[in-house]
Amino acid sequence: MTYCVAIKVNEGLICLSDTRTNAGLDNISRFKKMFTWTVPGERAITLMTAGNLAITQAVMSLLQENIDKPENGLETLYSAPSMFRVAEIVGDAMRIVQDRYGPGLAARGEASDSTIICAGQRAGGPLRLFLVYSAGNFIEATDDSPFFQIGEHKYGKPILDRVITPEVPLADATTAALLSMDSTLRSNLSVGMPLDISVLRKDTYAFETEERIGTDNGRFQALSQRWSDALREAFVTIPQVIG
Amino acid sequence: MTYCVAIKVNEGLICLSDTRTNAGLDNISRFKKMFTWTVPGERAITLMTAGNLAITQAVMSLLQENIDKPENGLETLYSAPSMFRVAEIVGDAMRIVQDRYGPGLAARGEASDSTIICAGQRAGGPLRLFLVYSAGNFIEATDDSPFFQIGEHKYGKPILDRVITPEVPLADATTAALLSMDSTLRSNLSVGMPLDISVLRKDTYAFETEERIGTDNGRFQALSQRWSDALREAFVTIPQVIG
Repeated sequence: MTYCVAIKVNEGLICLSDTRTNAGLDNISRFKKMFTWTVPGERAITLMTAGNLAITQAVMSLLQENIDKPENGLETLYSAPSMFRVAEIVGDAMRIVQDRYGPGLAARGEASDSTIICAGQRAGGPLRLFLVYSAGNFIEATDDSPFFQIGEHKYGKPILDRVITPEVPLADATTAALLSMDSTLRSNLSVGMPLDISVLRKDTYAFETEERIGTDNGRFQALSQRWSDALREAFVTIPQVIG
Repeated sequence: MTYCVAIKVNEGLICLSDTRTNAGLDNISRFKKMFTWTVPGERAITLMTAGNLAITQAVMSLLQENIDKPENGLETLYSAPSMFRVAEIVGDAMRIVQDRYGPGLAARGEASDSTIICAGQRAGGPLRLFLVYSAGNFIEATDDSPFFQIGEHKYGKPILDRVITPEVPLADATTAALLSMDSTLRSNLSVGMPLDISVLRKDTYAFETEERIGTDNGRFQALSQRWSDALREAFVTIPQVIG
């Protein structure tokens, strides 16, 4: 399984993914699910993937191949004039790959379902956050729904539902994303460390943070521990409902 | 959908269920999913159900019918000599009902899957908490795994994973159950108010609390609000992981 979360607040965008994949319970691997493309000062784009790994890897390879072969004359993540067009290009690549492998997978009773979170900003345009479905269609985050989750999303949703609004500072939204991930890691073995995180502050067109958080990351361990302590402390302040 | 949670701590047992059922998104109803049987001073038993409503209602009716017709001479929830035997009786009723309707449902491509939480204490025995599956088999909660959830369990699991151990006082475990439910209610429309709760203190053989919590319950509203506030306050104390 997988857990990826992307949050868009007024100050910027946070993308966070785990790295665990599994084909059955006894076949667990580590694969990167976050990919970034940057033209410093002009655009910064993050994609995160969930679902059938062969499908999403093929989509990523197709997108990269079009960048690597400018002689093909195809529009790419680097040349698209807007984030909306970037989402369309990702959706087109998804449709091409689904058309190629979807019927064969369906005939074998296997799922080709995949989703891709597409987030970023291009100079002259706003921060945008999209969720691309298996059919290549997509939806966009709004002030009413400022975050998207893909994969094993339920464990980490309550903390986001309570905390995230567009007004939340970027640093606090980053903490919320990490707590959402930590809750998921603790409750579901199919989501695992290390994590990849990218943070894009509005109108900077370059990632403020782009790093891997490993199991030995003392600051992440401290966050997890401090949150457990804070929850237990908060208990004391909760009024009794019964009795 | 449904969300029911049962927690066994050293001081006692808490059972909490919602009341929403749905056949599709546009067919939502309210059904009780918690049922209790008490012989004051001798035994107190709570069952909670999830899954195919026709199946679980038939199981409950069968269990009650055997109680109402002592002339049948069958062992019942009131006459069973132990909580282990109570769980077997519930499992037997599940098997009878599954045998009757399971094949017909399967032929129509419909699920007969159902689960029942069975909790309580009988004089002379310990507090026990069981989870009965569709096949009538069951598992028992232990100190390592002191709670069971059925139905839409993922949203409310992280708070339990962080907080619940057998040493937690009964009042705090009750708060944890209610917070787990509140998180689920906020994040999933298929789980809905009102709630049913039963609290059984160890060696009392009568429910300390057995009540319905409605949407107009000011104390539950206060718990939900206070918890949101506490989470936001806790944020301030969380160390930054990046930056």
